[in-house]
Amino acid sequence: MINIGLLGLGTVGKGVVEILNKRQKELEDLTGRKVRVKKILVKNVDKDRGMDLEEGVITGDFEEILNDKDISIIVEVTSDLEESYTYIKKSLSAGKHVVTANKAVVSKYFEELSQLAADKDLAFLYEASVGGGIPVLKPLKEELALNKGIMIQGILNGTCNYILTRMVNEGKDYEEILKIAQDLGYAEADPTADVEGEDTLRKLRILATLVLQGRITEEDILSYGISSITSWDIENIKNMDSTIKLIGEARLTDEGYIALVHPTIIRNDSQFANVDMVFNSIIFRGENVGELKFYGPGAGKLPTANAVLRDVLDIINDSYWKGNPLGTNKLKNANHTFRSRYYIRISGSDKEVLELFQDALDDIISEEGNIAITTKEVLYKEILDRIQSLGIDRDQYFIARIMD
Amino acid sequence: MINIGLLGLGTVGKGVVEILNKRQKELEDLTGRKVRVKKILVKNVDKDRGMDLEEGVITGDFEEILNDKDISIIVEVTSDLEESYTYIKKSLSAGKHVVTANKAVVSKYFEELSQLAADKDLAFLYEASVGGGIPVLKPLKEELALNKGIMIQGILNGTCNYILTRMVNEGKDYEEILKIAQDLGYAEADPTADVEGEDTLRKLRILATLVLQGRITEEDILSYGISSITSWDIENIKNMDSTIKLIGEARLTDEGYIALVHPTIIRNDSQFANVDMVFNSIIFRGENVGELKFYGPGAGKLPTANAVLRDVLDIINDSYWKGNPLGTNKLKNANHTFRSRYYIRISGSDKEVLELFQDALDDIISEEGNIAITTKEVLYKEILDRIQSLGIDRDQYFIARIMD
Repeated sequence: MINIGLLGLGTVGKGVVEILNKRQKELEDLTGRKVRVKKILVKNVDKDRGMDLEEGVITGDFEEILNDKDISIIVEVTSDLEESYTYIKKSLSAGKHVVTANKAVVSKYFEELSQLAADKDLAFLYEASVGGGIPVLKPLKEELALNKGIMIQGILNGTCNYILTRMVNEGKDYEEILKIAQDLGYAEADPTADVEGEDTLRKLRILATLVLQGRITEEDILSYGISSITSWDIENIKNMDSTIKLIGEARLTDEGYIALVHPTIIRNDSQFANVDMVFNSIIFRGENVGELKFYGPGAGKLPTANAVLRDVLDIINDSYWKGNPLGTNKLKNANHTFRSRYYIRISGSDKEVLELFQDALDDIISEEGNIAITTKEVLYKEILDRIQSLGIDRDQYFIARIMD
Repeated sequence: MINIGLLGLGTVGKGVVEILNKRQKELEDLTGRKVRVKKILVKNVDKDRGMDLEEGVITGDFEEILNDKDISIIVEVTSDLEESYTYIKKSLSAGKHVVTANKAVVSKYFEELSQLAADKDLAFLYEASVGGGIPVLKPLKEELALNKGIMIQGILNGTCNYILTRMVNEGKDYEEILKIAQDLGYAEADPTADVEGEDTLRKLRILATLVLQGRITEEDILSYGISSITSWDIENIKNMDSTIKLIGEARLTDEGYIALVHPTIIRNDSQFANVDMVFNSIIFRGENVGELKFYGPGAGKLPTANAVLRDVLDIINDSYWKGNPLGTNKLKNANHTFRSRYYIRISGSDKEVLELFQDALDDIISEEGNIAITTKEVLYKEILDRIQSLGIDRDQYFIARIMD
């Protein structure tokens, strides 16, 4: 019997219970053992969960799970960062394997928790923390045994991708689509972490650290969100035979590495163009294997729970990646050297803008009260400096990288 | 020390040696052991291989490798089907793990070799046999523990995809692009197995058997190739805002399963549209995880060798999928129920065609001496019967499925 301690019974937690129930027989045939959730930690033990659960499974006391000698695997699907960190640390310290779906905790404590697990010869797995249901982190770890990682790039946030897809398809305003996304549960009441790029940044921190095999923290990543995009921007982008996605990217360059999260204008025939709605996609480039692309649901109850259970199965089969997967490469941040073509829209003025970007101008698009330009290849830093010199509010302008 | 016996030193074999040399230190750090190729079987021991090899590594005698007690892993990258089968069977019987890149042998002897390996508690792995460098078979085996497999679909042949991509991009004729592909080494002197769909069929046989967890052989798959396509067909397809790919697909239906390889017209905004040149892509649909898509190089020395070595690494780490991965579902072939919209072009006549398909007509495209139609949803069998009733040669017509 494999006994799991489940921390949290929100959407993903319920999905875990549901799939385990549904696949009981197959899992027993495969692993030779019954797999069950023995205890579930919840905040409110009296709340009706709308599902059949065995008597005594629910508990409000983490220590009860921690001290249960039968429980060998902790599945952590709570949402509070520091609480989650404490649970994971205590669980590993107590000799239990840990699976988590919490990207915030993996991102913040990646090095510490990876080392702790390796020291204790335990699994610390987090497949569901990046790319939702997509099997990507385990395949990447495997590629990195045989390949120097050169680049990782991804559409990593379902909320942003949902909003951008519908804006492109329907020509509606950002606020209107955001409201719909919130009503449908694709965006939170406070959407900041998603739309300002923080969630993408955390996932890129995890991917970049693995792929470039050196420490790349949240602070090492340049990030810019999508909240100031307008339907006029979308119209201009469509006229460029292109579409727009929030893309996180890290790659080696001659000067070190660059790591950034940016609204990115991509051609309609490019690899990310047809990644729509809440789907995610990740492109990896390795020295020998070349370019691999992964695609699948970036969120959702069953896809995410499925990714969590893949990790659990890897623990049961003892086929998980052993040791600390993080590398010790000394990496040099070269974000200040990052050059690209840009799309810049500034509302409410025009003359200054044209003067300001005169040396970098590629094309000018304008309508009453709005001006948009595309630039030649320039330093991102210079673009930001020049815009800041205008002294305008963040919601008065929008910048997107143009990817060739 | 891990000792490998390499059977074959063609393109892929050389790639295996090359990557092992390049990644020696990393692999030793990771596995705690040196990994080396101890013996290489070749047909002609005197041929200059254009690479540094240790004295005594090359042999012309398979038994020398088979009887070498130090060799625990056989990497089989020869090309002859029956010879390859003999090597694999003898190697497994002698207690050695086997990795192969040969899809023909996996396709023909899938059940027998899978069972033999399972009986002997050995690995029989073949990641490189489908999708070249893409990690897809291992991830699929993992998904199938947690998901009922519903559908698998793929662009699986680099040669066909290269030809179709260039025909679409350049508007040139099939024969002209085939010649270029042959000159560049993307197509063989006798391209039949690739362009008539046989290679795709073998890969689909492997994928379908895994995904639907029941026996689906080569004979269970309907197959139709690309060799009769013309630049006029391409023009018509582009006018439909679409492109064309050779797609293999197997999926469950209400009546059983369908499995087919077909030139397929897909919309420019669909998931396979941007899979170009020698790249491959595979879409899997599972009950819980939903739709996953894999993409990467479908061929090439280093990508394929990389896939072979992923299997080798899985054996060294003892993290490969244990037991027989093939299922025992009793599956019913329902290809005779398969309905779709079609594009049909018939050269040299028109009136009969219009009469023949009158009840199914959707649109008519014609130019002097050629007629092309698109149909409503009809049975594939009926299309074939009607065309055969015309008594025309295979190179006088072209049929493609239209996928919505």
